[in-house]
Amino acid sequence: MDEKRLKQQMAFCREIDKEKQIGRQTYLADGSRKENDAEHAWHMAIMAILLSEYANEEIDVLKTVTMLLIHDIVEIDAGDAFAYDEEAQKSQRAREQKAADRIFGMLPEDQREKMRSLWEEFEAMETPEAKFARTLDNVQPTMLNAASGGKGWLEHNVCLSQIMKRQSYTPDGSRTLWEYAWHHFFQPNLEKGRIRNDLD
Amino acid sequence: MDEKRLKQQMAFCREIDKEKQIGRQTYLADGSRKENDAEHAWHMAIMAILLSEYANEEIDVLKTVTMLLIHDIVEIDAGDAFAYDEEAQKSQRAREQKAADRIFGMLPEDQREKMRSLWEEFEAMETPEAKFARTLDNVQPTMLNAASGGKGWLEHNVCLSQIMKRQSYTPDGSRTLWEYAWHHFFQPNLEKGRIRNDLD
Repeated sequence: MDEKRLKQQMAFCREIDKEKQIGRQTYLADGSRKENDAEHAWHMAIMAILLSEYANEEIDVLKTVTMLLIHDIVEIDAGDAFAYDEEAQKSQRAREQKAADRIFGMLPEDQREKMRSLWEEFEAMETPEAKFARTLDNVQPTMLNAASGGKGWLEHNVCLSQIMKRQSYTPDGSRTLWEYAWHHFFQPNLEKGRIRNDLD
Repeated sequence: MDEKRLKQQMAFCREIDKEKQIGRQTYLADGSRKENDAEHAWHMAIMAILLSEYANEEIDVLKTVTMLLIHDIVEIDAGDAFAYDEEAQKSQRAREQKAADRIFGMLPEDQREKMRSLWEEFEAMETPEAKFARTLDNVQPTMLNAASGGKGWLEHNVCLSQIMKRQSYTPDGSRTLWEYAWHHFFQPNLEKGRIRNDLD
């Protein structure tokens, strides 16, 4: 057994505990508090396993799940930029690259490269797995926003044009899940005025 | 597309959001607060991916990860019984069976059976995947307890005989991880008196 290798792996496993303290803007379904990055990743990993049949293209489920589990690790250093905060989104990329260097850099070389390239693949949104992971990264908070009575949308005064921009690539991973989200999550909340309709 | 099927799947996905509110007795590495079941499952799923090379027997990683992601879902109804609370542990099994009926019962039949049997497999601790998942279920909180300066052990006045009983099956999944945990997590905290040594 390579003691140095296991020590590096364990140091990484302890380091990522910090992701539990990175807050998101999405409320839990009951609206009692906002979720954090670790909870969000856990939730999407299960959704990937249960909903993979709706991916537009065939996907490798373990690869997709791994991608979802680690995709927000960089936010330990870079923080979470709210989906509809355009200024924060602009500077986010540079902060996240630096964070990826440091955090994935704690792993032994083979795993460092594997995890880093999975994260880059998620960011690039080109492979079937990355596209489906992105779909879930949009659908999961939408499901929670709808469940909480639109609490997150109302708090940030979110309007339809922002949603359509953000969700423009949701159908790329799964047309079925996009249509479900539209009919069950977005449309009822537009009708109730919880999402501001600025496109009429 | 089978609308009823997707509705059942989405209802399950929304329901399990409640797992984020099931508290555990383990503190985060920095001791600032205790973690919850969803965070715990996320953490172990990544550990399973990174540490699978240390399993005693070859394991199916996706199966192990899925098991870990869903293994505490029953606690949404049954609550978390602290590892060293023997009274709570006794009645836990019946509560968890009832919870499994209700919660996995929300899924379409094929997925209901698959998830339920994965959970039963985890509980039975017989297959290579279940044994390795159990090892992680013991090693992850141990890693956090050690990182927080033994906060959880001190709070509950945990003694070595309790730990040895609880950890008796940890080597079954991975002798390497058990030995690492013993030398790096348990032994230093015994020496510092953060774990009460009642076996001397």
